[in-house]
Amino acid sequence: MDKPGFMTARPDPATVETAVGILKQRFGERLSTSQALREQHAHTTTWIPVEAPDAVVFAESEAEVQEIVQVAAAHRIPIVPFGTGSSLEGHLNATFGGISIDLSRMNRILAIHAEDLDAVVQPGVTRKLLNETLRDTGLFFPIDPGADASLGGMAATRASGTNAVRYGTMKDNVLALRAVTADGSVVKTSQRARKSSAGYDLTRLFVGSEGTLGIITELTVKLQGIPEAISAGSCPFPSVKAAADAVILTIQAGIPVARIELLDELQVRAVNTYSKLGLPETPLLLLEFHGTDAWVAEQSERFGEIAAEFGGGPFTWVTKPEERSKLWQARHDVYWASLALRPGAKGVSTDVCVPISRLAECIDETKHDIEATGLLAPIVGHVGDGNFHVLPLVDVENAAEVAVAKAFIERMVERAIAMEGTCTGEHGVGSGKMKYMLAEHGAPALAVMRSLKGALDPLGIMNPGKIVDPA
Amino acid sequence: MDKPGFMTARPDPATVETAVGILKQRFGERLSTSQALREQHAHTTTWIPVEAPDAVVFAESEAEVQEIVQVAAAHRIPIVPFGTGSSLEGHLNATFGGISIDLSRMNRILAIHAEDLDAVVQPGVTRKLLNETLRDTGLFFPIDPGADASLGGMAATRASGTNAVRYGTMKDNVLALRAVTADGSVVKTSQRARKSSAGYDLTRLFVGSEGTLGIITELTVKLQGIPEAISAGSCPFPSVKAAADAVILTIQAGIPVARIELLDELQVRAVNTYSKLGLPETPLLLLEFHGTDAWVAEQSERFGEIAAEFGGGPFTWVTKPEERSKLWQARHDVYWASLALRPGAKGVSTDVCVPISRLAECIDETKHDIEATGLLAPIVGHVGDGNFHVLPLVDVENAAEVAVAKAFIERMVERAIAMEGTCTGEHGVGSGKMKYMLAEHGAPALAVMRSLKGALDPLGIMNPGKIVDPA
Repeated sequence: MDKPGFMTARPDPATVETAVGILKQRFGERLSTSQALREQHAHTTTWIPVEAPDAVVFAESEAEVQEIVQVAAAHRIPIVPFGTGSSLEGHLNATFGGISIDLSRMNRILAIHAEDLDAVVQPGVTRKLLNETLRDTGLFFPIDPGADASLGGMAATRASGTNAVRYGTMKDNVLALRAVTADGSVVKTSQRARKSSAGYDLTRLFVGSEGTLGIITELTVKLQGIPEAISAGSCPFPSVKAAADAVILTIQAGIPVARIELLDELQVRAVNTYSKLGLPETPLLLLEFHGTDAWVAEQSERFGEIAAEFGGGPFTWVTKPEERSKLWQARHDVYWASLALRPGAKGVSTDVCVPISRLAECIDETKHDIEATGLLAPIVGHVGDGNFHVLPLVDVENAAEVAVAKAFIERMVERAIAMEGTCTGEHGVGSGKMKYMLAEHGAPALAVMRSLKGALDPLGIMNPGKIVDPA
Repeated sequence: MDKPGFMTARPDPATVETAVGILKQRFGERLSTSQALREQHAHTTTWIPVEAPDAVVFAESEAEVQEIVQVAAAHRIPIVPFGTGSSLEGHLNATFGGISIDLSRMNRILAIHAEDLDAVVQPGVTRKLLNETLRDTGLFFPIDPGADASLGGMAATRASGTNAVRYGTMKDNVLALRAVTADGSVVKTSQRARKSSAGYDLTRLFVGSEGTLGIITELTVKLQGIPEAISAGSCPFPSVKAAADAVILTIQAGIPVARIELLDELQVRAVNTYSKLGLPETPLLLLEFHGTDAWVAEQSERFGEIAAEFGGGPFTWVTKPEERSKLWQARHDVYWASLALRPGAKGVSTDVCVPISRLAECIDETKHDIEATGLLAPIVGHVGDGNFHVLPLVDVENAAEVAVAKAFIERMVERAIAMEGTCTGEHGVGSGKMKYMLAEHGAPALAVMRSLKGALDPLGIMNPGKIVDPA
């Protein structure tokens, strides 16, 4: 008998066939068992092998999600929610088969409460769709993980990105949500008030739960006023350590940066080539300030002084939208720019996050480790939060090389944890980082996580094989 | 048999006696059964009758908290954690008797990481003690619920207060915590990195759990840089509605107020008399801005223009510390100033929170309701969040008057919930607001809360009779 909350083997094929048959009858063309579609729904940009679900069903309403979950629960087969497929740690793999619920058709914006600075959306709404819809309101949704991810998926993985240093992560920007739990009921986690002390924080329980506690079917997200003025600029540094030290002092001085991104010299070279830019090929910080004209000028100047203290500069900044866009386009292109460094290789994106005081040391040691291994691995990071990414470019057919890269990532995670950091700042656990959960959290915290999982999903049907194992 | 997570009757007196005897042997003078001390530990500033614990024990370390919980678990008797006794909804009442664990002696500041803008503290550290200790660092801890509460208690009730509009609530300011759970183990909820996507958000699960899931034994809290410049000022308005409308536009315009507090005319009269001030006896907003000299001047002027649009003003503001302190002293004295309006009466503090767009309407209806009932009930609020308090001054010996006040509070809560608000913005549920949980959250969310409680505290020994009933 499995422990409550956990599935440890694929269900019996006949049971799966029965359940899929029931769903086929109900959903017709909206249920598919085509191999290509199934594999696409287990798509993962890691080196974790694809494990396809047994079927994909396109849900169009919360009531349909309930129906699907009820069928899955009745037959005890897994359910894996799918948004846009941009997760990075194997979150979407159907480890034990089952049903992938594609939520991309639930993409309606249900309400924009401009006066309350919030919006109510279905989970398949992507951040770009929301921001396009908001264009004439003077408001925007600040969380930007790079990919045009769905808001349901971003909430499920507690995503963040370049603006988090100022606007927080999904944890801070989801006011309330609705979720279908393992028994098929619909939970509303909170009212729409900005704060509440009325009971357990169910919103934050579902944010970051990666589909293992329920399927998010609606979100109320905070919006921000578009700043009157925005300045953006880039600042070269003599070393990654100097750049990281400047970041630390900027944060400690309370300079309210909206974005502060580090690119190491390899990353800058990749971006220059790919985006046809002429940035100096040294470690570089890209920054953005939000406020009024006077304020962004004042803050930009203060940052320039800090950069100079560490041998960085000049800090050149611009306020015109088209010039800012060009600068940030370079940042947004880093993934593709990096892949172009080594055509044919796979980029294995990984992230850690440490207290800001340890950031320079952590990046520095990681960089030395990259050099020692001989890996081609650019570094880019949301360094204002102490969060950075490494993208080893790996020939996945070369077992020796894969082993080197895997060992490198393990050392990087262990280094971050030893510095009171986390194995993932924003990508989530999925199956890729489960093995680090014990070292990071300790046995009692993992026991609590397992008991939460057991309480909310006793049959273990909700995205099994993710976040925590049954121990 | 009780449902997992819930105790529904007092334990057998002989069992209690045995457990208290064991603890007495272990803790000697640090365990007391004196009636005065027991009643003081069930102290509540509501009209909920005092229900004293069977004993009070002063814990001095996490290991001692573990020992006490283990004895309580072995005998299945309740545990009620106690910080400073400033909670408002009967949180500290020993509904089913048991042991009050007084944590006030666990008041050491374990680390101040100035470079990371965080501090690690024991739960009995009060906010004032922390801020006094920080005085020479240029940093401060922003959450100010009025009372000099303990940080453990503030986390347990998800407290906030005047600065929340800018700095958030305890939910946003606790980075990590340690808690002793019902089985006596110690859970560490998070590393010290600023953000993480590594699993369920245990920090936010314990914040706001009011001692019902575990006893907080250590907290890592965020600190802020003391602003270079602070301006504070007061602004009279012709009506509460006009003041609330000005608040709404201020928030919508994205003016980054650090504090924006509303006092109605009755509250201003009380403050004038008590604190010997000469404020105009009309509805009043008190504001504070944090930033640089130029910035606070710019924002103060922008607010003044908004106030004028609604017939308010003049907005007079000051930047000298002593003048600012005098202004905020008036705000901090409101509780005692209000009690002085009717000597001998008890002030029953209650709070609700609504989306900002509904704030003017909610306060206006509440004010009309106060007039219709004939209650003496000043209004004061953290209106930037949509949160406000009413303090009916009640002769608790007069049953008819108590009934009128109770019915008034019920209507106020129902009104807030109907406006997509919450029955408590910052005081917490305790036993006083349990009856509103179903109306606010709905049955499926309450079922999830009950199952979380059952999973983490199957015996129901952790502060039973609070937040949710067994249904």
